[in-house]
Amino acid sequence: MTRNADETRRRIMAAATGEFARYGIAGARVDRVAEAARSSKERIYAYFGNKDELFDAVFSASVRETLQAVSFDAADLPGYAGRMSDYFADHPEAQRLSTWYRLERPEGAGLRAVIEANQDRLRALAGEQARGRIAGEFSPVELLSLIQAIAASWGTMNPEFAGEAAGVSRAARRAAVARAVSRLIAPAPASPPA
Amino acid sequence: MTRNADETRRRIMAAATGEFARYGIAGARVDRVAEAARSSKERIYAYFGNKDELFDAVFSASVRETLQAVSFDAADLPGYAGRMSDYFADHPEAQRLSTWYRLERPEGAGLRAVIEANQDRLRALAGEQARGRIAGEFSPVELLSLIQAIAASWGTMNPEFAGEAAGVSRAARRAAVARAVSRLIAPAPASPPA
Repeated sequence: MTRNADETRRRIMAAATGEFARYGIAGARVDRVAEAARSSKERIYAYFGNKDELFDAVFSASVRETLQAVSFDAADLPGYAGRMSDYFADHPEAQRLSTWYRLERPEGAGLRAVIEANQDRLRALAGEQARGRIAGEFSPVELLSLIQAIAASWGTMNPEFAGEAAGVSRAARRAAVARAVSRLIAPAPASPPA
Repeated sequence: MTRNADETRRRIMAAATGEFARYGIAGARVDRVAEAARSSKERIYAYFGNKDELFDAVFSASVRETLQAVSFDAADLPGYAGRMSDYFADHPEAQRLSTWYRLERPEGAGLRAVIEANQDRLRALAGEQARGRIAGEFSPVELLSLIQAIAASWGTMNPEFAGEAAGVSRAARRAAVARAVSRLIAPAPASPPA
């Protein structure tokens, strides 16, 4: 029985991930999730609470998977950004869930895992700057904002750009992202001797 | 009468802009728009058609205003990106509408104004590269994707980052965006003489 319940829960999560990634919170329909999961609305509410709580379960799981799959590396920021670019190419639903979350949940306590990841990253960036390994001309907050935006860039273009971008392979996208971050963080060249 | 109709139409557009920016297409409620515009659902449907068509009117107007307010300048890309950063800071609803559009309207013909703007920009970037004024290591498509992502960066961070970013002023955000684009496009330093 427990095994069946776990299996049902897993099917509901998978179906809800697809539904929320496609339609967002307001647009999602719990009865479509129930149908896709071969379950029922009543079962979903009993397991997860209301639609907002179902979204929270789906989004938290997606964040956890992303953080596990792609580890931040302040000592290799181009590599990190390139891996994020690949991850978003392979998991567009992760990027869409995170965008829905930003649009539809602008307030609230925030996810502890994300808050802690941000703080760890800012500390690590400041450390690399203190050691002179990356440019000091941006604050850690500015650097993190720019690096995340560059890593996510291919998934944030307007749909009209899709045709133009269709010829750029996953590998070329990753390479462009990594090179952009290299340029961003390169320590300023030493001033010529006076 | 015509003057009244124009005025009603203007109030509906303003109310619908706020409603769609906040809630998206699926989440928007035409009766809230009617109330905020001191009009009626029937009047709105008569003027604009259904909710999707009302969104199209609002989003097209927003795109037109953005394109008019911030002109692309391939000869001064850091300046362009900085102005976009300011524009998004001053008009967060423009950035939100464009994100809802991407999420909720992934398919469709696309807006002619956006398609043409993309193509003009790609040609202009290729021209600057041919003249050696900006880095040739990215394709025009890669450059445009990266520049747009950097310009929009501050409005695309996760909500958990808002606390960290609160101390970064509008001017500092613009400056960081402009410097990031400068680094992105700087022509490679000449190889040292052999």
